[in-house]
Amino acid sequence: MDFPEVMNPPKLARDVLRVIPLGGLGDVGRNMAMFEINGKILLVDCGVLFPEDAHPGVDLILPAFDLLSDRLDDIVGLVLTHGHEDHIGAVPYLLKQRQDIPVFGSQLTLGLLAEKFREHRIRNADLRTVAAGDRVAVDEFELEFVAVNHSIPDALAVALRTKGGLVLHTGDFKMDQLPLDRRITDLRAFARLGEEGVDLFMTDSTNAEVPGFTTPEKDIQPAIERVFANSEKRIVVACFASHVHRVQQVLNAAARHGRKVCYVGRSMVKNMGVAEKLGYLEVPDNIIVSLKELDRYRPDQVVLLSTGSQGEPLSALSRMANKEHPAIELTEGDTVLLASSLIPGNENSVYRVINGLSRLGVDVVHKGNALVHVSGHASAGELLYCYNIVQPTNVMPVHGEIRHLIANGKLAEATGVPADHVMLVEDGGVVDLSGSKAEVVGRIDAPYIFVDGTMRGVTESQLSDRLILGEEGFISVIAVVNLHSKKLVSGPEIQARGFLEGDQDKMFDGIRAEIAKALTDALEEGVSDTYRLQQVIRRRIGRWVSGKLRRRPMIVPVVVST
Amino acid sequence: MDFPEVMNPPKLARDVLRVIPLGGLGDVGRNMAMFEINGKILLVDCGVLFPEDAHPGVDLILPAFDLLSDRLDDIVGLVLTHGHEDHIGAVPYLLKQRQDIPVFGSQLTLGLLAEKFREHRIRNADLRTVAAGDRVAVDEFELEFVAVNHSIPDALAVALRTKGGLVLHTGDFKMDQLPLDRRITDLRAFARLGEEGVDLFMTDSTNAEVPGFTTPEKDIQPAIERVFANSEKRIVVACFASHVHRVQQVLNAAARHGRKVCYVGRSMVKNMGVAEKLGYLEVPDNIIVSLKELDRYRPDQVVLLSTGSQGEPLSALSRMANKEHPAIELTEGDTVLLASSLIPGNENSVYRVINGLSRLGVDVVHKGNALVHVSGHASAGELLYCYNIVQPTNVMPVHGEIRHLIANGKLAEATGVPADHVMLVEDGGVVDLSGSKAEVVGRIDAPYIFVDGTMRGVTESQLSDRLILGEEGFISVIAVVNLHSKKLVSGPEIQARGFLEGDQDKMFDGIRAEIAKALTDALEEGVSDTYRLQQVIRRRIGRWVSGKLRRRPMIVPVVVST
Repeated sequence: MDFPEVMNPPKLARDVLRVIPLGGLGDVGRNMAMFEINGKILLVDCGVLFPEDAHPGVDLILPAFDLLSDRLDDIVGLVLTHGHEDHIGAVPYLLKQRQDIPVFGSQLTLGLLAEKFREHRIRNADLRTVAAGDRVAVDEFELEFVAVNHSIPDALAVALRTKGGLVLHTGDFKMDQLPLDRRITDLRAFARLGEEGVDLFMTDSTNAEVPGFTTPEKDIQPAIERVFANSEKRIVVACFASHVHRVQQVLNAAARHGRKVCYVGRSMVKNMGVAEKLGYLEVPDNIIVSLKELDRYRPDQVVLLSTGSQGEPLSALSRMANKEHPAIELTEGDTVLLASSLIPGNENSVYRVINGLSRLGVDVVHKGNALVHVSGHASAGELLYCYNIVQPTNVMPVHGEIRHLIANGKLAEATGVPADHVMLVEDGGVVDLSGSKAEVVGRIDAPYIFVDGTMRGVTESQLSDRLILGEEGFISVIAVVNLHSKKLVSGPEIQARGFLEGDQDKMFDGIRAEIAKALTDALEEGVSDTYRLQQVIRRRIGRWVSGKLRRRPMIVPVVVST
Repeated sequence: MDFPEVMNPPKLARDVLRVIPLGGLGDVGRNMAMFEINGKILLVDCGVLFPEDAHPGVDLILPAFDLLSDRLDDIVGLVLTHGHEDHIGAVPYLLKQRQDIPVFGSQLTLGLLAEKFREHRIRNADLRTVAAGDRVAVDEFELEFVAVNHSIPDALAVALRTKGGLVLHTGDFKMDQLPLDRRITDLRAFARLGEEGVDLFMTDSTNAEVPGFTTPEKDIQPAIERVFANSEKRIVVACFASHVHRVQQVLNAAARHGRKVCYVGRSMVKNMGVAEKLGYLEVPDNIIVSLKELDRYRPDQVVLLSTGSQGEPLSALSRMANKEHPAIELTEGDTVLLASSLIPGNENSVYRVINGLSRLGVDVVHKGNALVHVSGHASAGELLYCYNIVQPTNVMPVHGEIRHLIANGKLAEATGVPADHVMLVEDGGVVDLSGSKAEVVGRIDAPYIFVDGTMRGVTESQLSDRLILGEEGFISVIAVVNLHSKKLVSGPEIQARGFLEGDQDKMFDGIRAEIAKALTDALEEGVSDTYRLQQVIRRRIGRWVSGKLRRRPMIVPVVVST
């Protein structure tokens, strides 16, 4: 195992391929890998990471692609393995830096991306649709695309042939042997590439800790069927808005049971529109009804397909649970099916929704009490198959937290890959590949890029300010002085938020007088700049709040000179 | 199902027993039940709830016992079922209101409580030790205590005989048939009380959603044994500091493998001291070593018993994972055993610890990859046994979120309890019991009481301020005016935190001028009080930040008049 500290890599030698993960190694999200050889750069995926409590007010976290800002012209292409947010969500932000980067992806992937571009008003992107089996020469890189099965259709693995060696990057994948669309992970291609000799195998680590095999998608059909068979009232199914196959199963069940289907939630409507238009979703004739038409039908004649399976506070489902949805009111006897995973960190919000629904008398079916979700990622057993079929010279686990990467690396070792051929790195780790020789040659800093409502970056310092403000509140002391007459003209006025109750004014009487005296003294002693006077205030008020109130609010002293 | 809105209950009639949960019905935590008959009040448990992200800077949440503040003298006793924080943690805050409330509990429960009192400097508490089988008359209530098995020793259920009927309250319990201390849940007593006729059965709902039976504590011994057998370096075991039996198993394994044991973390040292002193923990001779003595031993000669199994940022384990622990440095080959549950909401922090340890090359064994934890609560199968043995007339599910209460109620119905005999209420629900007749007669508001570092209450409005500040930051605009000369003397000065970057001063030039003009105009138009001038500022700056920056920071206008 080897997680080097930040350490500059050597200059890149001719015909050596350098691999740097710019995101997704250390987190589940913001997946992005950078490949460089002979001055040319190819990127694989460009996704977002969704923030945690440690990132208040942050909407998205981007890969560290600002590292590329002075290399933009060297980028020869961006390959997208599939259409999930954590793989394509950051593309608009990258293209804002250089709009004509050639983007390679499958039909559905680019279809979903195009929707994003509309929102971000990106018009002149260079989108190049590719399909499994295609070979495309992109400058120093010869790309070959391989079909893989995942929780969204049309996912691709990509092989990169370079003078530095042959890399196979799986993207996200699993090996469902009986997928709804019959499109299996192409192990024949994996085998053929293995025979040719895979010098570096980059594999999805998300489920490497999970023993055995991921259950086939179709195995959740009985649970869905049971819900439709038993429900005498309204049915709501919540799942990821990109999970076309899950939606397909619900459409099929609805057709069998003569229920109309209503998409609820912007992204659900949008994505299913794309999926249907491109032929990835088979929609039975006139089964879809709009939210407006809903009241024409009895509850037992419809099923709602909704977003919000992760308990997102503003999502359709959360609003139903809080009786705040403008159009939909759930009542006793209705059924809600959460056909989705429970992403770690979302438990509180998901259970809040389940409790809210339960309080309404709604029956809630979820992965805790029925088989209504299967993962989109290969479990340990499947990864072992891959390693044995590809028999790679070197391995680099990608996509996951450290614990996942380590578990994946151990699986590779178990199949005979020598430990020192397992490139275990986090974001920013620099791996050089030359023929069959791969090694970690350094580690660059690969910081988070935060995005909030403003679509403007949020800095670490702003975040730490927010954390302090959120935990402790702030206290502001305003004084007006006259530096010429060396007098305190007015104040100090004290404003506090977030940590006091009762009559603040009275509470401040003592300290106000103390600060007034301190300022007067300082002025008389000849202190003649507002900055130093503000320091005087900071000291006094700081000692007071920590001593008297045991709090550490943010302190904002303001001295105005007239 | 019946969750009434807030609605005042009728005046309590003579010889009718009124039951009001003051906490723990709707949350997992702050458990407290109030029983009143003929003007006398008996309380069962008085625990804390640990806050979520929605409660920034809050340390604890208390039951709604401020509802009792004008009834303190009517309280005839407080019964504590066991020594967990969510059942005894709030006692000091209650006793600060009336210190001589008689407190009934088992030896260990009161032993742990006494430690709390020391910290809170409570000296004259009236502690009355009781044991399983004891019968105690407390004014209108005749109490009988029944042994139950839980994840802490010496837990008790309590039966209340009153003129209003017989209530059996299980507290937290499970039915491990082979517990380490051989002290099983006394189903004979449950049966005898059932024969006598239990009018209201209040049962632990925590695991009501979990099918089957909770695994016996001793079944995790093999996993612990395996860790000790395979580890050639240091072992760290993290578990709840109150889980005496879990610690006992580690002590036994350490003795078998000739390792010394070192307690790490204040509460672990404190609680195990109490447990040993009172004879609930059998400590092999001179096996315990202090942190100071640790460096006398090779890593393979010791096992550390540590707090922090929930990833608490300041706990010993988190510090080890971040290489910040002053005394303990973990390295490759060490093993950390997380012998604990993963409480929903703690996933992020726990996985952060696991990732940190993995990064150090530490082997992490946790409930995700081994049987190293069993629950302390009865699963559905066990609850069914209870209902069938007690055959209660009425049932009131307690301890859990709505989903748990509902699941528990359904189990009761499955054993033949009529639906309208299941009292399904949340905190503040008022249930009157008269003989065999129980009914929900109202619902009072049972608000959270927040406690932070100051040991002073935190109000809802402070919390919402903190949430805004934490998400959006704040912007403060300070202007000095002279109301007599109707002039803007100085400013406006603008201070912003948490949402801006770059040169703020320059950014504000435009709006500063705009506000200056608005103030001057207002003054000339005769606006002559600072409050209205502040409104002028609020409007301008508000429009500016939301329009220009798309943010909604807290706005704090300050107008000082000289």
